[in-house]
Amino acid sequence: MIKTDKDLRTAALKYSSKQKLVTKITAPLEKQTDMSLAYTPGIAQVSQHLAEHPEDKFKYTFTRNNLAVISNGTAVLGLGKIGAVASYPVMEGKAMLFKKFANIDAIPIVVNSTNPKDFVKTVVDIADSFGAINLEDIAAPECFEIESQLQAKLDIPIMHDDQHGTAVVVLAAVLSSLKLIPHQGLKSKIVISGAGAAGVAITKILLEQGFENIIVVDSAGAIHQKNARSSIKKALAKLTNPELEEGSLGQVLDKADIFIGVSKADLLKTEYIERMNPDPIIIAMANPNPEIKPDKAIKAGAGIVGTGRSDYPNQINNALAFPGIFRGAIDRRKPITAKMKLAAAKAIVEYHQNKLSRTQLLPSILDPKVHQFIAAKVAQVA
Amino acid sequence: MIKTDKDLRTAALKYSSKQKLVTKITAPLEKQTDMSLAYTPGIAQVSQHLAEHPEDKFKYTFTRNNLAVISNGTAVLGLGKIGAVASYPVMEGKAMLFKKFANIDAIPIVVNSTNPKDFVKTVVDIADSFGAINLEDIAAPECFEIESQLQAKLDIPIMHDDQHGTAVVVLAAVLSSLKLIPHQGLKSKIVISGAGAAGVAITKILLEQGFENIIVVDSAGAIHQKNARSSIKKALAKLTNPELEEGSLGQVLDKADIFIGVSKADLLKTEYIERMNPDPIIIAMANPNPEIKPDKAIKAGAGIVGTGRSDYPNQINNALAFPGIFRGAIDRRKPITAKMKLAAAKAIVEYHQNKLSRTQLLPSILDPKVHQFIAAKVAQVA
Repeated sequence: MIKTDKDLRTAALKYSSKQKLVTKITAPLEKQTDMSLAYTPGIAQVSQHLAEHPEDKFKYTFTRNNLAVISNGTAVLGLGKIGAVASYPVMEGKAMLFKKFANIDAIPIVVNSTNPKDFVKTVVDIADSFGAINLEDIAAPECFEIESQLQAKLDIPIMHDDQHGTAVVVLAAVLSSLKLIPHQGLKSKIVISGAGAAGVAITKILLEQGFENIIVVDSAGAIHQKNARSSIKKALAKLTNPELEEGSLGQVLDKADIFIGVSKADLLKTEYIERMNPDPIIIAMANPNPEIKPDKAIKAGAGIVGTGRSDYPNQINNALAFPGIFRGAIDRRKPITAKMKLAAAKAIVEYHQNKLSRTQLLPSILDPKVHQFIAAKVAQVA
Repeated sequence: MIKTDKDLRTAALKYSSKQKLVTKITAPLEKQTDMSLAYTPGIAQVSQHLAEHPEDKFKYTFTRNNLAVISNGTAVLGLGKIGAVASYPVMEGKAMLFKKFANIDAIPIVVNSTNPKDFVKTVVDIADSFGAINLEDIAAPECFEIESQLQAKLDIPIMHDDQHGTAVVVLAAVLSSLKLIPHQGLKSKIVISGAGAAGVAITKILLEQGFENIIVVDSAGAIHQKNARSSIKKALAKLTNPELEEGSLGQVLDKADIFIGVSKADLLKTEYIERMNPDPIIIAMANPNPEIKPDKAIKAGAGIVGTGRSDYPNQINNALAFPGIFRGAIDRRKPITAKMKLAAAKAIVEYHQNKLSRTQLLPSILDPKVHQFIAAKVAQVA
């Protein structure tokens, strides 16, 4: 039984000590004639063809279905800036999930550049090797610049999953929750704790979905147009906090309907929940320990509680989103747009509508059909 | 039947239009407990462990058995500088051979940098993602600088195969040939046509093996200490052409025992062969068309003829060398040294000694045991 972190480390190292991912040849390569097509002299003809028709790359090479999971190790899970090598296991794990849930041949790549300019140059330099790029575990605010520059320079699907994968599953969780406890619909008061990569992306997708009353809170309190200093917070302040509410997390949660935490363990006190509207929706995503433990939140009056963890009810994990989003985008060879991300969130809600309950807010990540359903919906709007 | 280049292109494009290479998961990933070890939260423990013990990277990740086949597309097969995208099929074909013959999980990577400094920076930036690097199809003279800089900066096995893979199989062919037709042993007069990546590496490995009488010829004629201009040719001139022979290829082939061509189709005239010592050894590696056709060379008096092609007898292809060399180096986690390359050449000769004949100079690439034999011998001296 895995009870402590030490147990978990022992089990995880044991699991990782065996080969988890390999390459596999799927074309005949037995006879001399196979060799002459797979390698020299036949392959020179394929190269010559691509020299004349580079647009056929996805037709004749491994790039047709591959993807790079790329990090520089600056914001790894709950561990922070642990560097490229130490981030590699997460990229490999994610590569396994891409294969498992979306049949994408994902390759883990770590880049030894924390400077955004160098990082972007390196990724652009190797981008012809891949059909898509999942950016992962890159610290804010650099992640915003890195993603937008790469999307401007390259025409393959590119997404920073810590932002958008998280945003998509949180939106799905919010929409599903409101089906059970309607609150004020798109006018519900939503307080987001955390203005990092995920906080910004969640705010944006909620606005795109039509939510009107969002307040983002960071360690300095509620962000509004008078106190926002950095360019990112200024941009957030313009779009949120319409009443210019001031104060701490506890204060702005007054009469709120929905709490979304992408911040730190145990930030959400039970007395804050008591101050929210009845049956509030609590989405506490801090990793590995949520802003409040579910049983504590329920006792304080929460209507629905979700976290990022698989050992509590209502796991809200971006692994529910990224496989289908990339599968849909790769199938259509299209960049990933806001429309596609909204479609993914709605697909998750639609897929689960007949099984929806307060303790089963989202479909299981392990259900292979949900990923196919999301991929199809994403491809439809691509 | 494949008769023309057009037939070959049709067949090769058809072969490449289907998936040839994929990734495969080899660890259990069915249940929630598997998920928690392969991905969050367990994988964070593996990352944390690597943050404390980066030296365990090869113990717990895909890098234990992977390799990048990297090119910038500046010298692709016989096609020249066709660019990164067009070079990709060759890297993918080579990745398939690595898997097939050495069970190495090779990943094709193309880099959009022709400038050596930029190329080296990009490769160093992503090197933590791999257990070894096979450099491929990079033009001379940049390839020399690129390889030596990467070897200085990184401690994984790194080899530019166009140089050293070719040199190893050519040395094996020379040693096997001399078993059948001894000529003057290590004092045999060897003329190498071509002073590019392969020509330089072949010269070096022959010198390391103890051959004393080598003349390198390029388009300007025999290279010697008085006419060598570039730094690479000056270095070659110091080590070769002890008699300071001058003149064209035809002239210096006078009384030569061995011709090695890594140059251009049809450069070797029949009258040159007639001027060589009786039963000369002709190794004509120009790709795709050799310096002389085998039947023509035999008619002119050649004792043994080998080429790079699989449709003539005596194919001399670096696919016989690189799988075993990298397998041995990866198994020992050691950089690739001159000693290991010599061991690989001798292993090829030793493996084939009981089957050796003038028309079967080397073992078949398709014999899986030869690669294992080479790997073991390389590992022994690593």
